Amino acid sequence: MPTTDPAAGTLHDGVHALPLRVYYEDTDFSGVVYHASYLRFLERGRTEFIRALGIDQADLHAADGFAFVVRRMTIDWLRPARMDDCISIETRPLALKGASLELAQRVLRGGEVLLEATVLVVGVAGGRPVRLPADLRRRLETATSAGS
Amino acid sequence: MPTTDPAAGTLHDGVHALPLRVYYEDTDFSGVVYHASYLRFLERGRTEFIRALGIDQADLHAADGFAFVVRRMTIDWLRPARMDDCISIETRPLALKGASLELAQRVLRGGEVLLEATVLVVGVAGGRPVRLPADLRRRLETATSAGS
Amino acid sequence: MPTTDPAAGTLHDGVHALPLRVYYEDTDFSGVVYHASYLRFLERGRTEFIRALGIDQADLHAADGFAFVVRRMTIDWLRPARMDDCISIETRPLALKGASLELAQRVLRGGEVLLEATVLVVGVAGGRPVRLPADLRRRLETATSAGS
Amino acid sequence: MPTTDPAAGTLHDGVHALPLRVYYEDTDFSGVVYHASYLRFLERGRTEFIRALGIDQADLHAADGFAFVVRRMTIDWLRPARMDDCISIETRPLALKGASLELAQRVLRGGEVLLEATVLVVGVAGGRPVRLPADLRRRLETATSAGS
Repeated sequence: MPTTDPAAGTLHDGVHALPLRVYYEDTDFSGVVYHASYLRFLERGRTEFIRALGIDQADLHAADGFAFVVRRMTIDWLRPARMDDCISIETRPLALKGASLELAQRVLRGGEVLLEATVLVVGVAGGRPVRLPADLRRRLETATSAGS
Repeated sequence: MPTTDPAAGTLHDGVHALPLRVYYEDTDFSGVVYHASYLRFLERGRTEFIRALGIDQADLHAADGFAFVVRRMTIDWLRPARMDDCISIETRPLALKGASLELAQRVLRGGEVLLEATVLVVGVAGGRPVRLPADLRRRLETATSAGS
Repeated sequence: MPTTDPAAGTLHDGVHALPLRVYYEDTDFSGVVYHASYLRFLERGRTEFIRALGIDQADLHAADGFAFVVRRMTIDWLRPARMDDCISIETRPLALKGASLELAQRVLRGGEVLLEATVLVVGVAGGRPVRLPADLRRRLETATSAGS
Repeated sequence: MPTTDPAAGTLHDGVHALPLRVYYEDTDFSGVVYHASYLRFLERGRTEFIRALGIDQADLHAADGFAFVVRRMTIDWLRPARMDDCISIETRPLALKGASLELAQRVLRGGEVLLEATVLVVGVAGGRPVRLPADLRRRLETATSAGS
């Protein structure tokens, strides 16, 4: 029976997987998914990974003005996704520092890897770099060690 | 237990409901969802409504070059959605003609109506208006009468 | 000689025209411009129309928290735009009330009308409807009467 | 006097610069430009760079099914752009091989560098890697040597 909640994905052994459907809006006239659309997919994956750790980013933002900001990405587009495809966004923490978090992300269609990325996000508040909140750090440490 | 499929929504009594999550990409600097993002949400709702009728749009396009094109919309933005909101896209067929389909769509957050729209889509193939394929018409007729 | 400024368009007799180029990002796999992309184009046209009146929306927002919000649109998609097309966004004020402004907008390619829209925007501050700032009203009145 | 053409930018000494305005659509609720929006800006810069070389990508696509596809990017987000900012997209060819082109791109606001990227694009036709068309290669070689 179909769920009546948005897909939130699953977290196992430190790896989060979010299922997504490709829609018209994601494609371009070349017939496949527009290259920048994958960055929206990856950001949805990171958001659901953080949510799966039990962290509410809207609460963090309301309390301390804390937000994650993308600082650096390296992205390899390997194969194109197409309209109506079911794809999966895989998110795995690689390294946790005082004010930053490095993640490995992949886009898959079944067993096929469509895209690989390394993403460095940093914490900011009021436009300045800040240490990640303590509770968030603890949960990320647990997730990071689970995956290694 | 969380599903490992993308949310596809449910179809009851001729009304389709698709649950969606609001992400960073959907918002703008005013703090709420960007007005044009709702049109992407409505299009996802229409796509899943058609899929719930058992119609594969990619197949139709591959076979006859058939596609739906939006011809006319009237949209009322009533209340804003925000980052992290769970919303629902409601899609209900209103009227079916030879080459066109009129739908009523709403965006809801719980019981609150955020947006109402009337949408006229027409069938095209090779850039010209065409009658809707017979099988698609039959399934839409059933859905349309179920909702009245 | 090519300009080194972004295109800002021109305002003559109360009608503003903003030239735009269609890029990959605006299209979808059907080969033409995605229907919701036109709403982004229309919003760019309204923004440059207001700027051409000598109003800085960022200043208004910083000073009083004032912002325009789209309340209602009626849109007719007449002909598709394609990758690499040069199009023009035409914006013309129709009616000015205490807290709202109605505009007629069109998308053209040369002399061909691709889209027609009527747009109702309202002023808000802190999430509530507010009267339009006096200076903005005066300039809109002048522009509205110029076009009639 | 304002131009009535879309901004196409300028090409000097092998470096192309495209001026752009930041609109509502480009921002997110954190108040600054959404990280993936910069990839749309970079793609506009590459498109206008190729057009400035005298190459019509739509013609290439129509003739041989040729298209550029992004294969790899490394991106550093250094400082945020904001609503209403005038920014410039700088595009400079780095290396030209049989079937690929590497470019350096930057986003600037005045003299401030907001983003730096290295982009590898490859030529494809019918979904397969192909050599770049001869005329395109010649023009890219000239531009690449002009910048070194």
